[in-house]
Amino acid sequence: MSQKQIKLYYKNVLAEVIGDEHGITNQQWDDLAAKVKPLIPAITKELRGHIRHPKITKTVYGSLPADTDTAARVMKLVGEMKGRCENLVVLGIGGSALGNIALQTSLNPYMYNIDAKQRSGPRLFVFDNVDPAQLSSFLNWLGDGLDRMVFNVISKGGQAAETAAQFLIIYKMLVNKYGQESLAEHIVVTTGFDTYEKGLFKSSLYRIAKGARPELPLLEVPRDVGGRFSVLSAVGLFSAAMCGIDIDSLLAGARDMDERVSCEDFYKNPAAIIAAVNYHFYNRGKRISVMMPYSYALKDWADWYRQLWAESLGKSVDLQGKKVNIGPTPIKALGTTDQHSQVQLYREGPNDKLFTFLQVENFDDDLVMGSPPECASDLNYLAGKKMSTLLNSEKRATEYALLESQRPCLTVLFDRVTPYTVGQFIHLFEATTSFMGALFNIDTYNQQAVELGKEATFALMGKPGRCKPDLTYDQFAQVIRSRTDIDPDFLV
Amino acid sequence: MSQKQIKLYYKNVLAEVIGDEHGITNQQWDDLAAKVKPLIPAITKELRGHIRHPKITKTVYGSLPADTDTAARVMKLVGEMKGRCENLVVLGIGGSALGNIALQTSLNPYMYNIDAKQRSGPRLFVFDNVDPAQLSSFLNWLGDGLDRMVFNVISKGGQAAETAAQFLIIYKMLVNKYGQESLAEHIVVTTGFDTYEKGLFKSSLYRIAKGARPELPLLEVPRDVGGRFSVLSAVGLFSAAMCGIDIDSLLAGARDMDERVSCEDFYKNPAAIIAAVNYHFYNRGKRISVMMPYSYALKDWADWYRQLWAESLGKSVDLQGKKVNIGPTPIKALGTTDQHSQVQLYREGPNDKLFTFLQVENFDDDLVMGSPPECASDLNYLAGKKMSTLLNSEKRATEYALLESQRPCLTVLFDRVTPYTVGQFIHLFEATTSFMGALFNIDTYNQQAVELGKEATFALMGKPGRCKPDLTYDQFAQVIRSRTDIDPDFLV
Repeated sequence: MSQKQIKLYYKNVLAEVIGDEHGITNQQWDDLAAKVKPLIPAITKELRGHIRHPKITKTVYGSLPADTDTAARVMKLVGEMKGRCENLVVLGIGGSALGNIALQTSLNPYMYNIDAKQRSGPRLFVFDNVDPAQLSSFLNWLGDGLDRMVFNVISKGGQAAETAAQFLIIYKMLVNKYGQESLAEHIVVTTGFDTYEKGLFKSSLYRIAKGARPELPLLEVPRDVGGRFSVLSAVGLFSAAMCGIDIDSLLAGARDMDERVSCEDFYKNPAAIIAAVNYHFYNRGKRISVMMPYSYALKDWADWYRQLWAESLGKSVDLQGKKVNIGPTPIKALGTTDQHSQVQLYREGPNDKLFTFLQVENFDDDLVMGSPPECASDLNYLAGKKMSTLLNSEKRATEYALLESQRPCLTVLFDRVTPYTVGQFIHLFEATTSFMGALFNIDTYNQQAVELGKEATFALMGKPGRCKPDLTYDQFAQVIRSRTDIDPDFLV
Repeated sequence: MSQKQIKLYYKNVLAEVIGDEHGITNQQWDDLAAKVKPLIPAITKELRGHIRHPKITKTVYGSLPADTDTAARVMKLVGEMKGRCENLVVLGIGGSALGNIALQTSLNPYMYNIDAKQRSGPRLFVFDNVDPAQLSSFLNWLGDGLDRMVFNVISKGGQAAETAAQFLIIYKMLVNKYGQESLAEHIVVTTGFDTYEKGLFKSSLYRIAKGARPELPLLEVPRDVGGRFSVLSAVGLFSAAMCGIDIDSLLAGARDMDERVSCEDFYKNPAAIIAAVNYHFYNRGKRISVMMPYSYALKDWADWYRQLWAESLGKSVDLQGKKVNIGPTPIKALGTTDQHSQVQLYREGPNDKLFTFLQVENFDDDLVMGSPPECASDLNYLAGKKMSTLLNSEKRATEYALLESQRPCLTVLFDRVTPYTVGQFIHLFEATTSFMGALFNIDTYNQQAVELGKEATFALMGKPGRCKPDLTYDQFAQVIRSRTDIDPDFLV
């Protein structure tokens, strides 16, 4: 742990700062510590696949930071592909896109795609939607320029309609232009390897990669890692490494954080503390959890966190025979931008939010403000100051204003935004999510409620076969239409 | 009104669809209509500056769509600047940026900045933050290429520290390179004209523009229009028109919507209905309002809406001597992307949200999916289908799944995304905001809670003078520091 660690600052959630009505009192803090401390050993094991509870899905995301074999395989493939790749396109959605986007925004320059001087790898585009206008614009730009394109298609199960749809458009283009035999130069498949259904590999992408001649380059999504916990697997590592991000350092940061989130001393375990604080406020009516980075680079981690939190913790559970709906609502915000958008509500609206700021102490590139002309001497106070000083003063000013309104605030402090600190951050919030799930006593790793919408899409798109023993997709489509057809009486 | 109108579909908030516990019953609907109907004439006047209540700030945003003089002035300036502008940079924050961004995302192609073939105006960059890493990357790209740059600096009061800071960096660069006399070729100032303080024009930007030789091109932010309602003033129109967006059509859409939101028949007034529905659910514990466009083009309108809603409706009010904190929390989401991020929470988490979908019926550019190879015949169901069909099937599937979980859903239907329909949308949601404010009986147009953070920033940045009669900025800075200095006992 020679490099600087990210730090958690948690004083500003306490009653001594924001008062007894909204802050955590000493007694409540002691109770939280007593509740969380005994969970730490079980959760540490859980991160490596030891099941906390027989009904709960397992995960091994805690093993990813130590998986140097995958990193080596990724680097080998990067070595083969990078020289002939000018544009890299990730096709994926949810956990197969959010981490890729956040790695790129945080660890490469803002103008990476536009300014060739500022990149040491291909341009990166991530398509995580099925919007015809968006994708058409991209393909119009491309024109005939497919030669130096690589598509990394990512889907664990290979069944996501969105990724499959994007893939079928690209696949057609590539086959038409180069023929089957050149596909392996243009497609990298990242998918699950060993899930079977009816004797077949379940992942259509796996079958396509293995069936091509020559085979398409394949990377694995580990079986026991869900999409939202997969950024440190091949899912996130390949596009990052292609774009020149130091993935070894990223993994080293995560490994070092693993020691801290396994620490059995509650007061030294940042994941345990963040989870305890969130759990406390959730149970007291603060059910909205705002992550607000004061750093453009870190903004997309708030979006990644939003999936991690929502899919892991938004769960319906049976509590003594009664169905209870659980789950904080995560919100992404951005400082200073959202001071001029959300802070009015954050201060004067209902006191129903916990704020988690991300703050960066040092910027490698800084800017110094010049002097205003004489007629605008009211701006003199800025002249000669650094922009980073202003940014961090604004963070402090906003936090101060929130504290004056008795709103609880956490801060995660980054010395700098580097692969090492970002790796720490990833593992910190993944582990925090596991702590939260254990506190709520829910299955952190499934996402059953998403299935109905997926099945409904299959039905509406005319997939053959059955979705239930007693229902064909076709019959299901009739049900959906009868429930959602526009009724003109309610159209204004 | 020859072009197609956007439509509101509201059946899926009713008890007949999602049940009595969570839906609006017939009786409740009648009560809402009875409550909202008498407000319509007062609100219609309010949009044009007639004050609803003596304590309430006034607004004239409702007059903007008819302000063809401004549109003509903007077009004249565009005519002068466009030929010599290859890159347009907007410097602004909050209401001086969100509308500009949303206009560009919705009405120009996704690859506009990268693909010269897809644009008929300058590249557009909007900086609405003071992040040194982000701005440095931009300036590194620029290098010496300032010649064909135009900076549109937008700030109503000219005091926002963020915009002033950006401006002082750019100002220094321009003066160093070209000297004072060339500033008018590179800077367009959009600011308030007639607010005075101590005998001086309050807006530093106004003074700078008037003090320069030659004067800098000036556009006005109308005095009685707040930032978040200003997109149809020169604030939003200049950058849009520079980038080839048809602002006449945009304003025509808003004017046509103005007739609809003034309609005294509640059942024909979409703003009245959206507000009534939101008000109803807010009062019944659904305090989160999710806007979820199923269209990449429309995604940034959800961000714009987020400011409009939060600053207008997040208000602390005295209710019979007791302070009450009011305000729904607006959330931006994106379909289909967030199906794989938020829908688990939206279905199984607490039933505390109202969903407003934006749906587009026709896409000018569409894509057709190809056939999969034989080994992946499970994807055959997609072959030959349009991508827009998939997108809208996913919307329907998601709405169906939410309805099955008794979650209320509204939909705003766009025939196409055009300047005309976008203009309608803007005016619809601005008017809806005014209806909401009247229902909550709050001042929709102020944002007092933002001031403390602004003052605290001034104090921490060393501004001279006093913030209160009994407190200098310097003394205030001491107070803030004593409250927010890091206490190492709470740092992990």
